[in-house]
Amino acid sequence: MPELRKDPITGRWVIISTDRAKRPSDFLRESVEIKGTSFCPFCYGNEEKTPPEVLAYGRNGGPRNKPGWRVRVVPNKFPALGIEGDLDRQGEGLFDKMNGIGAHEVIIETPDHSTTLATLSEKGMEEVLWAYRDRVLDLKNDRRFRYILIFKNHGEAAGASLEHSHSQLIALPIVPKRVREEVDNSKKYYMEKERCIFCDMIRQEMADGERVIAQNETFIALSPYAPRFPFETWLLPKPHASAYENTQSTVYTGMAKLMRNLLARLDVTLHRPAYNYMIHTSPLGEEINDHYHWHIELIPKLTKVAGFEWGSGFYINPTPPEESARFLREAVL
Amino acid sequence: MPELRKDPITGRWVIISTDRAKRPSDFLRESVEIKGTSFCPFCYGNEEKTPPEVLAYGRNGGPRNKPGWRVRVVPNKFPALGIEGDLDRQGEGLFDKMNGIGAHEVIIETPDHSTTLATLSEKGMEEVLWAYRDRVLDLKNDRRFRYILIFKNHGEAAGASLEHSHSQLIALPIVPKRVREEVDNSKKYYMEKERCIFCDMIRQEMADGERVIAQNETFIALSPYAPRFPFETWLLPKPHASAYENTQSTVYTGMAKLMRNLLARLDVTLHRPAYNYMIHTSPLGEEINDHYHWHIELIPKLTKVAGFEWGSGFYINPTPPEESARFLREAVL
Repeated sequence: MPELRKDPITGRWVIISTDRAKRPSDFLRESVEIKGTSFCPFCYGNEEKTPPEVLAYGRNGGPRNKPGWRVRVVPNKFPALGIEGDLDRQGEGLFDKMNGIGAHEVIIETPDHSTTLATLSEKGMEEVLWAYRDRVLDLKNDRRFRYILIFKNHGEAAGASLEHSHSQLIALPIVPKRVREEVDNSKKYYMEKERCIFCDMIRQEMADGERVIAQNETFIALSPYAPRFPFETWLLPKPHASAYENTQSTVYTGMAKLMRNLLARLDVTLHRPAYNYMIHTSPLGEEINDHYHWHIELIPKLTKVAGFEWGSGFYINPTPPEESARFLREAVL
Repeated sequence: MPELRKDPITGRWVIISTDRAKRPSDFLRESVEIKGTSFCPFCYGNEEKTPPEVLAYGRNGGPRNKPGWRVRVVPNKFPALGIEGDLDRQGEGLFDKMNGIGAHEVIIETPDHSTTLATLSEKGMEEVLWAYRDRVLDLKNDRRFRYILIFKNHGEAAGASLEHSHSQLIALPIVPKRVREEVDNSKKYYMEKERCIFCDMIRQEMADGERVIAQNETFIALSPYAPRFPFETWLLPKPHASAYENTQSTVYTGMAKLMRNLLARLDVTLHRPAYNYMIHTSPLGEEINDHYHWHIELIPKLTKVAGFEWGSGFYINPTPPEESARFLREAVL
């Protein structure tokens, strides 16, 4: 008998098809391969092919936009939003619009073209996380922005147009709907119980254990109770923390370790799948609160299409999260 | 300068990248081809390979589950939900679940394996729409159900596993989140203005004309103001109607004509693309109201991935709706 399950954070119901449970081998699609055959603007020596860098680690006083960096952040050459100008909010009868003002940046995670986040050193992974933080802190000074979205598309099937390992950041003058909902629902829960719903969830999942994939002192990776997609995984800091950038440095260390560990498990279990991840954090201006708990949502690109899911917000997931957690937990690294 | 636009129904903001506006030829992907090379359970003579029919037009007293039908509805052989049993709602600590009870049916739109909805006769198209209605009316008698989702996946890229033209129907014990939001937001608008927001939108779009693709006396096809995807199209009845099944028969006639016309325009403009459509209608038990206006949302499968859109509910659309409306309006049929 399939099950209908409700995600407590968003209130979204999903169908979990326990009858036709799928094994990882049912999903094997093209593995992400680093071919390295075409010109790469993210490799050493090609720094001038990108817009000038806004951040780089490892320069030690050396010249900017030259080789020698370990992590490098540059504006996106083809930005989805423009950085100059005013929002100029306007109505058009029933409709509302504003200028597409925002920042769109690329975080080049390593100079090594053949490395992925799963094979990067722990130290390297931690520097990527610090680079995210440093950019958020800088962009927060721009009062036009209300939200900073950090995300990664890994592999062509997940929307990456360049294979050299990188993440992206978009600063927006509005709060994305999905984030607004999560924050508002968490607040409602807090008003009622004076507890963070994510802290409650982590506590219950740790006690139960069935959906836990891996954990360390400060971070936990789990298959959520009502996932939309097979092998959807959430990574959360164990201590309450409402904003990504306001997190204890020990938590970043734990996160770097767990991220690498989880990505290695995904690579083994699903044969180097394409994936997307996104950091969900509190909107700017409401960073410090007791109700929202920042986290990362990771979705391997396994199923063919979202099909009618786009139209309905309703998902059918052929893999129970208890199964995907078990496969990932038992992966031999 | 790109634009940020807000959909008035859902409150969702999207980025419309007016700078890098895309022409239809930028999207040309594999056309949907009917190969007819493998065994088809939806063709005449194979009626016994599907579960027994629940509806068929054209039998004229002839035997069931035999050739001779024009439209045939059968339960899905691999249903996402089970029809037998109780909901058995339960909590698991923080979480909520219930048995996956529901109906999952397939509407076989024509006995002709080589026909698509775009090439089906107007009469044939109208019969498909009536079959949807007849199934909704029947399933409404089951008090466990709260919503009936009718949708179509056309082409493998859009998730169709069989190429013979068909739609699907899923009856659910819950209302999908996206639908709930639309209905609630429309109600809020009505409470304030005592007008249906969709009626207001249709009035504004007809006066403006820029986003109108095609129309007749009872139905209109338009590119919405803040579409998530290139060439996303909405089809709406012009007179206010809150539920699909409670609509005047002249509206079905107009709808059949306009659906065929729109699908032909898509085929010409985008070279027979894969697509998904879904009927958005009022939940069961609240069918008759002044605030919600049923309609069809159609999304051609053109862009490679939704990428981070899944995680954020935030969309970047490279094609302004004024452009896609113009391309579709000017298609030579």
